[in-house]
Amino acid sequence: MTFEVTILGCGAATPTSRHHPSAQLVNMHEKLFLVDCGEGTQMQLRKYKFRIQRIGHIFISHLHGDHYLGLMGLISSLHLLGRKTPLHVYGPAALKELLDLSWKVSDTWLLFPLEFHMVTDELEQLIYEDRTVEVHSIPLKHRISCCGYKFVEKQRPLKIRKEAVEEYRLKPSEILELKKGRIVVRPEGATIDPAVACVWPEPPRSYAYCSDTAYNDQTVKSVQGTSLLYHESTFLESEAKRAADTFHSTASQAAEVALRAGCKQLLLGHFSSRYQDDQAFLTEAEQVFPNSILSYEGLTVPVL
Amino acid sequence: MTFEVTILGCGAATPTSRHHPSAQLVNMHEKLFLVDCGEGTQMQLRKYKFRIQRIGHIFISHLHGDHYLGLMGLISSLHLLGRKTPLHVYGPAALKELLDLSWKVSDTWLLFPLEFHMVTDELEQLIYEDRTVEVHSIPLKHRISCCGYKFVEKQRPLKIRKEAVEEYRLKPSEILELKKGRIVVRPEGATIDPAVACVWPEPPRSYAYCSDTAYNDQTVKSVQGTSLLYHESTFLESEAKRAADTFHSTASQAAEVALRAGCKQLLLGHFSSRYQDDQAFLTEAEQVFPNSILSYEGLTVPVL
Repeated sequence: MTFEVTILGCGAATPTSRHHPSAQLVNMHEKLFLVDCGEGTQMQLRKYKFRIQRIGHIFISHLHGDHYLGLMGLISSLHLLGRKTPLHVYGPAALKELLDLSWKVSDTWLLFPLEFHMVTDELEQLIYEDRTVEVHSIPLKHRISCCGYKFVEKQRPLKIRKEAVEEYRLKPSEILELKKGRIVVRPEGATIDPAVACVWPEPPRSYAYCSDTAYNDQTVKSVQGTSLLYHESTFLESEAKRAADTFHSTASQAAEVALRAGCKQLLLGHFSSRYQDDQAFLTEAEQVFPNSILSYEGLTVPVL
Repeated sequence: MTFEVTILGCGAATPTSRHHPSAQLVNMHEKLFLVDCGEGTQMQLRKYKFRIQRIGHIFISHLHGDHYLGLMGLISSLHLLGRKTPLHVYGPAALKELLDLSWKVSDTWLLFPLEFHMVTDELEQLIYEDRTVEVHSIPLKHRISCCGYKFVEKQRPLKIRKEAVEEYRLKPSEILELKKGRIVVRPEGATIDPAVACVWPEPPRSYAYCSDTAYNDQTVKSVQGTSLLYHESTFLESEAKRAADTFHSTASQAAEVALRAGCKQLLLGHFSSRYQDDQAFLTEAEQVFPNSILSYEGLTVPVL
């Protein structure tokens, strides 16, 4: 089943000719979730051929412009293109105020239900759940209230091996038990073990998005064991003081989080416009956490 | 002296792969004026190599998102890149409310003075003036309060011909009189005519921006004799009813305004995303007003 992340923008506060502001699209079993929505996100979605009406849920980390200023334009386009299905938006309470004011001044009455869900940075919360995924908010440590988001795939049920159905002449009630991982005991005393009768699913995968944040012990706990961690690396270690002052992280600190949290892979992003070449971020991170990769616009990373 | 308009975006409400939302840069004697600021304008300015800190004045026509949603991001970048000089923003009163709320939620304190000037669509007003230009607001006829803007170059003073200074042995006081276009009468009765002693400057040029608006007799009066008229042509005549219903114009109506107002040249723009080929707008307009041209992103049109 598909589980992948496409980077739409991975620059920091001021866009450059190389980087757009923050936005990414998570495809979880063909459901599309948008995470942050910097200015120009709707154009980036179009550029990379995503059908914007397929987006059902949008998660905004915080209210610095480079993380949300594309939201009003995107929602307006969804409206003008005839959307009818609900759209769920998650973010700080003041985001609703911004959205409401922008509809008011433009005399816009959305043709579809926009369901707003307030997210607070006071605690980690399960904010969305369906058959295949849970989304949790992750409190981050930034200059203003800020949350990351963690997508955790649900454990899929075991699958019965066709051969086992024939071999043991399994009844529907027995199949149901085996798929739950339970041993079936027949009246005559014979047992059927799911380890023999079933194919085990892949272990659940997870993706965590942490931008923007200072290095933070709490984040290490929140992203423990994550398959793929996107962690901001606005600066290099040579600017560690500036990173601390502005509540951002260095590439080395991002790698330190990935290492301590036992993540499988680290995706670096939110690069400051002061650097001409992103390679230095990778070099710095790899010294701490070798399985690191660089974000760039248009990159799709499978969550493994 | 330079007087030209560069199109940064000429699409209508929903951006396409061909068109960005409305924005254009007016260069008047090397002073840069931004007119409308749709989403992504700061990226477009960067793409076409304009130095954003040179922009001193921004004019917003109305509060539909495709005309202003790039403003917060642009101002934020000016701030982050260290601007100190004042920025003047002209637009509807509620624009200030939007800007103030966006600074509040992001805890941003601008490092430069932002001077907000409220523009009303109740009357045509002189809203800016300096040594070389006057800017007037033009009330338009749209679904919400909307103003166009007209840039009128000031009549430059006459220039004295060098040969005349020698031939008539002109005194400084006489030069001053002649440059004002006045005939000099000497004590002995001799007269010196500025028509002989001076070089006449080019007649003042003007540029008018009209987007978005339904066809409107009042607009014809406001843009009378304009050198270059940008008039929205969201639709073709085949969609005249839709144009009327949404307070927009057809290409033919835009040309009708240019013709009746005696403009020199018409620049068509604000093309609806429903059309795949802009050429049809030009064909339709040229039947009414032959000196028409099509906007496209990156086009610079000299005002003649």
